[in-house]
Amino acid sequence: MQDLAFLPRLIEALGPDVVATEPDQVAPWLADWRGLYRGNAQAVVRPRSVDEVARCLALCQQAAVPVVPRGGNTGLCGGAAPDSSPANVVLSMDRMNAIRSIDTIANTLIAEAGCILGNLRRAAQEAHRLLPLSLAAEDSCQIGGNLATNAGGVNVVRYGMTRELVLGVEAVLPNGEIFHGLRALRKDNTGYDLKQLLIGSEGTLGVITAAALRLFPRTDARSVVLAAVASPLQALELFELLFAQCGARLQAFEFFTGDCVDLVLKHAEGVQEPFSQRYPAYVLVELADTTDEAALNVLLERVIGEALERELCLDAAVSASLSQLQSLWKLREEISEAQRADGPHLKHDVSLPIEQIPAFMVSMEARLKAISPSIRPFIFGHFGDGNLHYNLSRPAGAQRDWTAQHGKALTAEVLDEVARYGGSISAEHGIGQLKRDDFLRLKDPLELRMMRGIKQLLDPAGIMNPGKLL
Amino acid sequence: MQDLAFLPRLIEALGPDVVATEPDQVAPWLADWRGLYRGNAQAVVRPRSVDEVARCLALCQQAAVPVVPRGGNTGLCGGAAPDSSPANVVLSMDRMNAIRSIDTIANTLIAEAGCILGNLRRAAQEAHRLLPLSLAAEDSCQIGGNLATNAGGVNVVRYGMTRELVLGVEAVLPNGEIFHGLRALRKDNTGYDLKQLLIGSEGTLGVITAAALRLFPRTDARSVVLAAVASPLQALELFELLFAQCGARLQAFEFFTGDCVDLVLKHAEGVQEPFSQRYPAYVLVELADTTDEAALNVLLERVIGEALERELCLDAAVSASLSQLQSLWKLREEISEAQRADGPHLKHDVSLPIEQIPAFMVSMEARLKAISPSIRPFIFGHFGDGNLHYNLSRPAGAQRDWTAQHGKALTAEVLDEVARYGGSISAEHGIGQLKRDDFLRLKDPLELRMMRGIKQLLDPAGIMNPGKLL
Repeated sequence: MQDLAFLPRLIEALGPDVVATEPDQVAPWLADWRGLYRGNAQAVVRPRSVDEVARCLALCQQAAVPVVPRGGNTGLCGGAAPDSSPANVVLSMDRMNAIRSIDTIANTLIAEAGCILGNLRRAAQEAHRLLPLSLAAEDSCQIGGNLATNAGGVNVVRYGMTRELVLGVEAVLPNGEIFHGLRALRKDNTGYDLKQLLIGSEGTLGVITAAALRLFPRTDARSVVLAAVASPLQALELFELLFAQCGARLQAFEFFTGDCVDLVLKHAEGVQEPFSQRYPAYVLVELADTTDEAALNVLLERVIGEALERELCLDAAVSASLSQLQSLWKLREEISEAQRADGPHLKHDVSLPIEQIPAFMVSMEARLKAISPSIRPFIFGHFGDGNLHYNLSRPAGAQRDWTAQHGKALTAEVLDEVARYGGSISAEHGIGQLKRDDFLRLKDPLELRMMRGIKQLLDPAGIMNPGKLL
Repeated sequence: MQDLAFLPRLIEALGPDVVATEPDQVAPWLADWRGLYRGNAQAVVRPRSVDEVARCLALCQQAAVPVVPRGGNTGLCGGAAPDSSPANVVLSMDRMNAIRSIDTIANTLIAEAGCILGNLRRAAQEAHRLLPLSLAAEDSCQIGGNLATNAGGVNVVRYGMTRELVLGVEAVLPNGEIFHGLRALRKDNTGYDLKQLLIGSEGTLGVITAAALRLFPRTDARSVVLAAVASPLQALELFELLFAQCGARLQAFEFFTGDCVDLVLKHAEGVQEPFSQRYPAYVLVELADTTDEAALNVLLERVIGEALERELCLDAAVSASLSQLQSLWKLREEISEAQRADGPHLKHDVSLPIEQIPAFMVSMEARLKAISPSIRPFIFGHFGDGNLHYNLSRPAGAQRDWTAQHGKALTAEVLDEVARYGGSISAEHGIGQLKRDDFLRLKDPLELRMMRGIKQLLDPAGIMNPGKLL
């Protein structure tokens, strides 16, 4: 039953500047950016402070109104789009976008949830420090959303996921209480680490309003090689060699198939064929260091020389300038956009025990081709973390509604195969709406029960982001 | 009310080899190693498998029997010693000491909870990998205890706390259910990260039976400098310089006062006066890398040269050989033992926002000297993490029961001052029994309520490690 006094109370508490209710004001906040999900909402709330977030949540809980927290809306699983209930309130963090502090002695950056990741990266850079979280959507996504989904990206192999970069969190719990966990201490062993529950919870336990993040020394010395490999097995052997010999300098180890290069050369501008022939697959390796680019180049050339000699790769192109480095990276960075330009496709963000990737690639392809012989897999990802974006494009000549017709069954095939290898059905994109059924089907029943217990404990009224994750 | 059928049922379920009940068998398991805490127990259980742990906990929960998990008993806060209840069961993990796997491709090590940390470090070393967790008790402590207390140590500045090294956890919940979270995936964004609750929970939520740990490339190239500094402020400036210029090579940044050196030279064997004069304080810096020790030495000498020129330190001794490196480290490593030999003292393991350390050191000493003018502080610790071991020895001529008479009041002074600076009253040692009152007094009430809610959720019968932490 709808509480008719709720909206007037909310507007009175926060003001008409913060609460928008007109249909044309609300409409832009109802869908995810890919257009896969569209829902309803009675209002969009855009608070300017943690206190306004707290007042909003307290009123929503009292009236049992569902709350959908929203960051930059760059998620791939529909986690920030409201469901069909007309009672929803979308809570956008975009106005809470202040950097509260940058400390180059403690090496911490404290930012409000609505800060754009790219802006934080540049602010750290100007302070001669590195915020290593880096991903394709960095100039649109917000740091609060990065925490809520425990975002990954290209530098995880060296610096870890978002979780590993977080020292403290400020958040508002569903009852409007403020969780003052914005400590920037490197070490604090005083009880359960509660912020870990909020990180990766996809807005289902509360609203993250600010984060204390770790900064690192700038790694301005960079050296990149594109290595051609015959197979995922060869990529794996190359990874083992680089990991042991380059240590902490190994900043990225990205994999993509020759088919991905075809796609990029067809759809993207300003990219070049990297070698005189097409190879089955490629690995893009970046080493980075605080100092001495010449030494870094020498190291990379020596290790790649050894790899060529030991037949751990087929060919290699080392960057001799910044522009070469950037054009090698472009081959990898343009894959998603090229695939979008190519037409409808299914995305699968999965991870595997890294040594299982070669076997998985063989059995997965066989399984899919048995169902759909001309299906076109485009496989790329953060190989060094065991993370593949195992994407499937519709076969040539298939109908436009191919994803609607076959998507669910093909996705189930992929995720079941991943589970069979002990992998994860979501490496870095989360669950949201997209993977919820598969998550509930495949997750260990005890873990599901524990998660539901925690959800019930922190959000007894069940107002936080309904229909997502759990 | 005691359930008289409990012990026979436990022995029937696990066998007399696993369950010891004779007073002389039980006696060695009732105290912590420092002798600060001694309690009671009706039995000691030493399971050989996760299934035996599960059967034990299920029976204990049915009979409402308290369970005290025990690792290597090297904790400093009495977390593994039973309280006074004669109903306690001590659950020792020492027989579960198998390394289940070492994988040099995935770079993971899976070990049972009872494995001695030093043995795991050596096993990794033999496999040409590094397990970076390293601390004074490493040849006695068990990895399960390291996880349960989120142990720190000397390499946190580079590799993080135990929490950051853990990929997966196997555990038994208080009702005997097995938590199958022993995944070795680098990325897994499928719901709340439940293992984070068990890490650092000090045995109050369940029993960790195995862990999947991250391995790193071996860093056999090492270079060490002992720098003399005039003050903590100078140490801070030196840290800033080294952090920015040496990047990930900065493996340790340890601080100790001149008084600590006096103590070590007095009590330890085979240590030498490092300089021709005594300085107010010292910083021990270690750089480490996978390769090229010569380049590492050049880098360290260049940066220390700059520090001397810019007056960020007073003097410096660089290790020119492994034996010199080891004797420089000995000055730091022998402090705890020298202080023990020196007599009764109070230990405080605290952390601070690193840039507050200089101000804290001044105001803390003034506060203590106002109460006890001849108190002797011996301050050392992992300065790079903001972690100080702020220890207090009794004044010359004070009575032997000085710690009993003045300990509680002095400790309250130290911890209150730490809280005033936004620090943590336990950086890496945990809460246990020792800091429980201070923890309950100083922790944010909302966080305490959340922790109690989680405790109630996972351990509704309240059998796990009563009297510790919460």
